[in-house]
Amino acid sequence: MKKRSEFTTLCYIEDESRYLMLHRTAKEKDVNKDKWIGVGGHFEAHESPEDCLLREVKEETGLTLISWRFRGIVTFTLKTQEEQITEYMCLYTADGYEGTLTPCEEGTLEWVEKKDLFSLNLWEGDKIFFRLLQEEYPFFSLKLVYEGNELREAVLNGTNLEWK
Amino acid sequence: MKKRSEFTTLCYIEDESRYLMLHRTAKEKDVNKDKWIGVGGHFEAHESPEDCLLREVKEETGLTLISWRFRGIVTFTLKTQEEQITEYMCLYTADGYEGTLTPCEEGTLEWVEKKDLFSLNLWEGDKIFFRLLQEEYPFFSLKLVYEGNELREAVLNGTNLEWK
Repeated sequence: MKKRSEFTTLCYIEDESRYLMLHRTAKEKDVNKDKWIGVGGHFEAHESPEDCLLREVKEETGLTLISWRFRGIVTFTLKTQEEQITEYMCLYTADGYEGTLTPCEEGTLEWVEKKDLFSLNLWEGDKIFFRLLQEEYPFFSLKLVYEGNELREAVLNGTNLEWK
Repeated sequence: MKKRSEFTTLCYIEDESRYLMLHRTAKEKDVNKDKWIGVGGHFEAHESPEDCLLREVKEETGLTLISWRFRGIVTFTLKTQEEQITEYMCLYTADGYEGTLTPCEEGTLEWVEKKDLFSLNLWEGDKIFFRLLQEEYPFFSLKLVYEGNELREAVLNGTNLEWK
Protein backbone atom coordinates (compact mmCIF):
# COMPACT_ATOMS: atom_id res chain seq x y z
CA MET A 1 0.00 0.00 0.00
CA LYS A 2 1.20 3.45 -0.92
CA LYS A 3 2.13 5.42 2.17
CA ARG A 4 -0.08 8.49 2.28
CA SER A 5 0.58 11.72 4.07
CA GLU A 6 -1.78 12.50 6.92
CA PHE A 7 -1.85 16.07 5.63
CA THR A 8 -4.75 17.05 3.36
CA THR A 9 -6.56 20.00 1.83
CA LEU A 10 -10.30 20.55 1.99
CA CYS A 11 -11.89 23.24 -0.16
CA TYR A 12 -15.36 24.74 -0.29
CA ILE A 13 -15.88 26.52 -3.59
CA GLU A 14 -18.63 29.08 -3.11
CA ASP A 15 -20.74 31.67 -4.81
CA GLU A 16 -22.89 34.14 -2.89
CA SER A 17 -25.51 31.69 -1.74
CA ARG A 18 -24.10 28.20 -2.41
CA TYR A 19 -21.23 25.81 -1.71
CA LEU A 20 -20.03 23.17 -4.14
CA MET A 21 -20.46 19.97 -2.14
CA LEU A 22 -19.22 16.46 -2.83
CA HIS A 23 -21.48 13.56 -1.88
CA ARG A 24 -19.05 10.70 -1.21
CA THR A 25 -20.79 7.68 -2.62
CA ALA A 26 -18.22 6.11 -4.93
CA LYS A 27 -15.80 4.19 -2.72
CA GLU A 28 -17.01 1.37 -0.48
CA LYS A 29 -14.18 1.70 2.05
CA ASP A 30 -14.20 5.42 2.75
CA VAL A 31 -14.12 7.17 6.11
CA ASN A 32 -16.43 9.78 4.50
CA LYS A 33 -18.82 7.19 2.96
CA ASP A 34 -22.24 8.83 2.25
CA LYS A 35 -21.18 12.10 3.88
CA TRP A 36 -21.21 15.50 2.14
CA ILE A 37 -17.85 17.25 2.24
CA GLY A 38 -15.76 19.63 0.16
CA VAL A 39 -13.24 18.67 -2.50
CA GLY A 40 -9.58 18.03 -1.79
CA GLY A 41 -7.24 15.23 -0.84
CA HIS A 42 -3.85 14.11 0.36
CA PHE A 43 -0.63 16.01 -0.18
CA GLU A 44 1.79 14.49 -2.65
CA ALA A 45 5.52 14.58 -1.90
CA HIS A 46 6.95 18.08 -1.40
CA GLU A 47 3.72 19.90 -2.17
CA SER A 48 2.81 23.09 -0.35
CA PRO A 49 -0.80 23.47 0.81
CA GLU A 50 -1.53 25.59 -2.30
CA ASP A 51 0.16 23.09 -4.65
CA CYS A 52 -2.10 20.38 -3.24
CA LEU A 53 -5.20 22.60 -3.26
CA LEU A 54 -4.87 23.58 -6.92
CA ARG A 55 -4.05 20.04 -8.08
CA GLU A 56 -6.86 18.38 -6.14
CA VAL A 57 -9.51 20.92 -7.15
CA LYS A 58 -8.47 20.51 -10.80
CA GLU A 59 -8.55 16.70 -10.55
CA GLU A 60 -11.88 16.47 -8.76
CA THR A 61 -13.84 19.30 -10.42
CA GLY A 62 -12.04 20.21 -13.64
CA LEU A 63 -11.86 23.80 -12.35
CA THR A 64 -8.76 25.97 -12.00
CA LEU A 65 -8.90 28.16 -8.91
CA ILE A 66 -7.94 31.81 -9.34
CA SER A 67 -9.10 33.16 -5.97
CA TRP A 68 -9.04 31.37 -2.63
CA ARG A 69 -8.55 31.95 1.11
CA PHE A 70 -6.79 29.73 3.65
CA ARG A 71 -9.29 29.70 6.51
CA GLY A 72 -7.99 27.26 9.09
CA ILE A 73 -6.42 23.96 10.03
CA VAL A 74 -8.60 21.16 11.28
CA THR A 75 -7.02 18.37 13.32
CA PHE A 76 -9.42 15.51 12.68
CA THR A 77 -8.89 12.51 14.93
CA LEU A 78 -11.07 9.41 14.77
CA LYS A 79 -10.97 6.52 17.21
CA THR A 80 -12.44 3.20 16.23
CA GLN A 81 -12.14 -0.16 18.01
CA GLU A 82 -9.15 -1.03 15.80
CA GLU A 83 -7.18 2.19 15.45
CA GLN A 84 -6.94 5.94 15.84
CA ILE A 85 -6.32 7.99 12.73
CA THR A 86 -5.40 11.66 12.68
CA GLU A 87 -5.51 13.95 9.69
CA TYR A 88 -4.50 17.60 9.42
CA MET A 89 -6.82 19.34 6.99
CA CYS A 90 -5.91 22.70 5.48
CA LEU A 91 -9.29 24.32 5.06
CA TYR A 92 -9.92 26.71 2.17
CA THR A 93 -12.80 28.59 0.65
CA ALA A 94 -12.58 29.71 -2.97
CA ASP A 95 -14.71 32.24 -4.83
CA GLY A 96 -12.98 32.45 -8.20
CA TYR A 97 -12.25 29.81 -10.80
CA GLU A 98 -11.99 29.13 -14.51
CA GLY A 99 -13.18 26.18 -16.55
CA THR A 100 -16.20 23.91 -16.59
CA LEU A 101 -17.33 21.54 -13.88
CA THR A 102 -16.63 17.90 -14.75
CA PRO A 103 -17.83 14.71 -12.99
CA CYS A 104 -15.81 13.57 -9.98
CA GLU A 105 -14.65 9.98 -9.46
CA GLU A 106 -15.06 10.22 -5.69
CA GLY A 107 -18.77 10.96 -5.70
CA THR A 108 -21.40 13.42 -6.91
CA LEU A 109 -20.75 17.18 -7.06
CA GLU A 110 -23.70 19.41 -6.32
CA TRP A 111 -24.22 23.12 -5.68
CA VAL A 112 -26.06 23.38 -2.36
CA GLU A 113 -27.71 26.51 -0.96
CA LYS A 114 -25.87 27.56 2.21
CA LYS A 115 -29.19 27.77 4.07
CA ASP A 116 -29.85 24.09 3.29
CA LEU A 117 -26.39 22.88 4.30
CA PHE A 118 -27.27 21.53 7.74
CA SER A 119 -29.97 19.24 6.37
CA LEU A 120 -27.26 17.21 4.61
CA ASN A 121 -25.45 14.23 6.13
CA LEU A 122 -22.44 16.17 7.50
CA TRP A 123 -19.80 15.34 10.08
CA GLU A 124 -20.94 16.96 13.34
CA GLY A 125 -17.73 18.97 13.57
CA ASP A 126 -18.08 20.34 10.05
CA LYS A 127 -21.08 22.30 11.30
CA ILE A 128 -18.71 24.02 13.74
CA PHE A 129 -16.31 25.14 11.05
CA PHE A 130 -19.11 26.13 8.66
CA ARG A 131 -20.31 28.50 11.39
CA LEU A 132 -16.77 29.90 11.76
CA LEU A 133 -16.56 30.39 7.98
CA GLN A 134 -19.94 32.13 7.87
CA GLU A 135 -18.97 34.40 10.78
CA GLU A 136 -15.74 35.39 8.97
CA TYR A 137 -13.79 34.08 11.95
CA PRO A 138 -10.05 34.81 11.52
CA PHE A 139 -7.68 31.94 10.71
CA PHE A 140 -8.38 29.16 13.20
CA SER A 141 -7.02 25.86 14.43
CA LEU A 142 -9.84 23.46 15.29
CA LYS A 143 -9.31 20.03 16.81
CA LEU A 144 -12.17 17.55 16.43
CA VAL A 145 -12.03 14.26 18.33
CA TYR A 146 -14.43 11.55 17.17
CA GLU A 147 -15.23 8.10 18.44
CA GLY A 148 -16.85 6.44 15.47
CA ASN A 149 -19.44 8.92 14.20
CA GLU A 150 -19.72 10.71 17.56
CA LEU A 151 -17.95 14.02 18.14
CA ARG A 152 -16.47 13.84 21.64
CA GLU A 153 -14.35 16.96 21.84
CA ALA A 154 -13.93 20.21 19.94
CA VAL A 155 -11.04 22.57 20.71
CA LEU A 156 -10.75 25.98 19.05
CA ASN A 157 -7.30 27.63 19.12
CA GLY A 158 -6.41 25.57 22.19
CA THR A 159 -9.65 26.21 24.12
CA ASN A 160 -12.38 23.63 24.65
CA LEU A 161 -15.65 24.45 22.91
CA GLU A 162 -19.18 23.77 24.09
CA TRP A 163 -20.78 22.96 20.78
CA LYS A 164 -24.07 21.25 21.60
CA MET B 1 14.36 4.45 14.00
CA LYS B 2 11.19 6.01 15.30
CA LYS B 3 9.01 7.25 12.46
CA ARG B 4 8.56 10.97 12.91
CA SER B 5 5.83 13.15 11.54
CA GLU B 6 6.93 15.69 8.96
CA PHE B 7 4.66 18.17 10.72
CA THR B 8 6.30 20.53 13.25
CA THR B 9 5.75 23.69 15.25
CA LEU B 10 8.15 26.63 15.36
CA CYS B 11 7.64 29.37 17.93
CA TYR B 12 9.23 32.77 18.43
CA ILE B 13 8.60 33.98 21.96
CA GLU B 14 8.91 37.75 21.97
CA ASP B 15 8.84 40.82 24.09
CA GLU B 16 8.65 44.32 22.63
CA SER B 17 12.18 44.44 21.29
CA ARG B 18 13.51 40.87 21.42
CA TYR B 19 12.94 37.30 20.27
CA LEU B 20 13.94 34.23 22.26
CA MET B 21 16.30 32.44 19.87
CA LEU B 22 17.75 28.95 20.03
CA HIS B 23 21.31 28.46 18.80
CA ARG B 24 21.38 24.83 17.62
CA THR B 25 24.75 23.59 18.70
CA ALA B 26 24.00 20.42 20.64
CA LYS B 27 23.37 17.68 18.07
CA GLU B 28 26.04 16.71 15.55
CA LYS B 29 23.60 15.40 12.94
CA ASP B 30 21.10 18.25 12.76
CA VAL B 31 19.67 19.92 9.67
CA ASN B 32 19.77 23.14 11.73
CA LYS B 33 23.34 22.67 13.02
CA ASP B 34 24.82 26.06 14.13
CA LYS B 35 21.75 27.94 12.91
CA TRP B 36 19.62 30.21 15.09
CA ILE B 37 15.95 29.28 15.05
CA GLY B 38 12.92 29.34 17.32
CA VAL B 39 11.83 26.62 19.69
CA GLY B 40 9.50 23.79 18.70
CA GLY B 41 9.58 20.30 17.28
CA HIS B 42 7.74 17.36 15.78
CA PHE B 43 4.11 16.54 16.41
CA GLU B 44 3.45 13.49 18.52
CA ALA B 45 0.59 11.17 17.61
CA HIS B 46 -2.84 12.84 17.50
CA GLU B 47 -1.61 16.24 18.67
CA SER B 48 -3.17 19.43 17.34
CA PRO B 49 -0.79 22.27 16.43
CA GLU B 50 -1.51 23.89 19.83
CA ASP B 51 -0.97 20.63 21.73
CA CYS B 52 2.44 20.34 20.09
CA LEU B 53 3.26 24.02 20.57
CA LEU B 54 2.55 24.03 24.31
CA ARG B 55 4.37 20.74 24.93
CA GLU B 56 7.46 21.65 22.93
CA VAL B 57 7.79 25.15 24.41
CA LYS B 58 7.48 23.67 27.90
CA GLU B 59 10.07 20.95 27.16
CA GLU B 60 12.60 23.25 25.53
CA THR B 61 12.27 26.41 27.64
CA GLY B 62 10.48 25.46 30.86
CA LEU B 63 7.89 28.13 30.06
CA THR B 64 4.12 27.69 29.85
CA LEU B 65 2.59 29.80 27.10
CA ILE B 66 -0.53 31.76 27.96
CA SER B 67 -0.74 34.00 24.86
CA TRP B 68 0.22 33.10 21.30
CA ARG B 69 -0.71 33.69 17.66
CA PHE B 70 -0.67 31.22 14.77
CA ARG B 71 1.06 33.26 12.05
CA GLY B 72 1.59 30.95 9.12
CA ILE B 73 2.57 27.61 7.67
CA VAL B 74 6.01 27.18 6.17
CA THR B 75 6.59 24.34 3.70
CA PHE B 76 10.32 23.76 4.07
CA THR B 77 11.81 21.52 1.42
CA LEU B 78 15.50 20.68 1.27
CA LYS B 79 17.24 18.82 -1.55
CA THR B 80 20.60 17.24 -0.94
CA GLN B 81 22.52 14.82 -3.14
CA GLU B 82 21.00 11.89 -1.23
CA GLU B 83 17.42 12.88 -0.57
CA GLN B 84 14.70 15.50 -0.46
CA ILE B 85 13.02 16.18 2.86
CA THR B 86 9.90 18.26 3.35
CA GLU B 87 8.60 19.61 6.61
CA TYR B 88 5.44 21.57 7.31
CA MET B 89 6.12 24.08 10.08
CA CYS B 90 3.27 25.73 11.97
CA LEU B 91 4.73 29.13 12.78
CA TYR B 92 3.74 30.90 15.98
CA THR B 93 4.70 34.01 17.89
CA ALA B 94 3.99 34.19 21.62
CA ASP B 95 3.96 37.21 23.90
CA GLY B 96 2.73 35.78 27.16
CA TYR B 97 4.07 33.01 29.35
CA GLU B 98 4.53 31.82 32.92
CA GLY B 99 7.50 30.19 34.60
CA THR B 100 11.25 30.55 34.48
CA LEU B 101 13.55 29.93 31.54
CA THR B 102 15.50 26.68 31.89
CA PRO B 103 18.42 25.40 29.77
CA CYS B 104 17.53 23.60 26.52
CA GLU B 105 19.02 20.27 25.48
CA GLU B 106 18.96 21.21 21.80
CA GLY B 107 21.24 24.24 22.11
CA THR B 108 21.60 27.64 23.77
CA LEU B 109 18.63 29.92 24.39
CA GLU B 110 19.27 33.64 24.10
CA TRP B 111 17.16 36.79 24.00
CA VAL B 112 18.17 38.65 20.84
CA GLU B 113 17.24 42.23 19.95
CA LYS B 114 15.00 42.18 16.86
CA LYS B 115 17.24 44.80 15.20
CA ASP B 116 20.22 42.45 15.53
CA LEU B 117 18.40 39.38 14.19
CA PHE B 118 19.78 39.44 10.64
CA SER B 119 23.38 39.39 11.84
CA LEU B 120 22.82 35.85 13.17
CA ASN B 121 23.39 32.66 11.17
CA LEU B 122 19.80 32.26 9.93
CA TRP B 123 18.25 30.24 7.13
CA GLU B 124 17.86 32.63 4.19
CA GLY B 125 14.12 31.97 4.05
CA ASP B 126 13.66 32.73 7.74
CA LYS B 127 14.49 36.36 6.92
CA ILE B 128 11.46 36.35 4.62
CA PHE B 129 9.07 35.20 7.30
CA PHE B 130 10.60 37.49 9.94
CA ARG B 131 9.76 40.41 7.61
CA LEU B 132 6.20 39.09 7.26
CA LEU B 133 5.91 38.81 11.06
CA GLN B 134 7.25 42.34 11.57
CA GLU B 135 4.86 43.73 8.93
CA GLU B 136 1.92 42.05 10.70
CA TYR B 137 1.19 40.17 7.48
CA PRO B 138 -2.05 38.17 7.80
CA PHE B 139 -1.86 34.38 8.11
CA PHE B 140 0.39 33.14 5.32
CA SER B 141 1.53 29.97 3.59
CA LEU B 142 5.18 30.23 2.57
CA LYS B 143 6.99 27.55 0.57
CA LEU B 144 10.79 27.60 0.76
CA VAL B 145 12.79 25.35 -1.56
CA TYR B 146 16.46 24.80 -0.66
CA GLU B 147 19.29 22.99 -2.34
CA GLY B 148 21.75 22.46 0.47
CA ASN B 149 22.06 25.85 2.18
CA GLU B 150 20.89 27.81 -0.88
CA LEU B 151 17.35 29.11 -1.11
CA ARG B 152 16.19 28.44 -4.69
CA GLU B 153 12.54 29.34 -4.56
CA ALA B 154 10.15 31.18 -2.27
CA VAL B 155 6.40 31.08 -2.86
CA LEU B 156 3.97 33.17 -0.78
CA ASN B 157 0.32 32.08 -0.81
CA GLY B 158 0.87 30.39 -4.17
CA THR B 159 2.75 33.29 -5.83
CA ASN B 160 6.48 33.28 -6.55
CA LEU B 161 8.44 35.85 -4.55
CA GLU B 162 11.45 37.89 -5.63
CA TRP B 163 13.33 37.91 -2.38
CA LYS B 164 16.88 38.97 -3.29
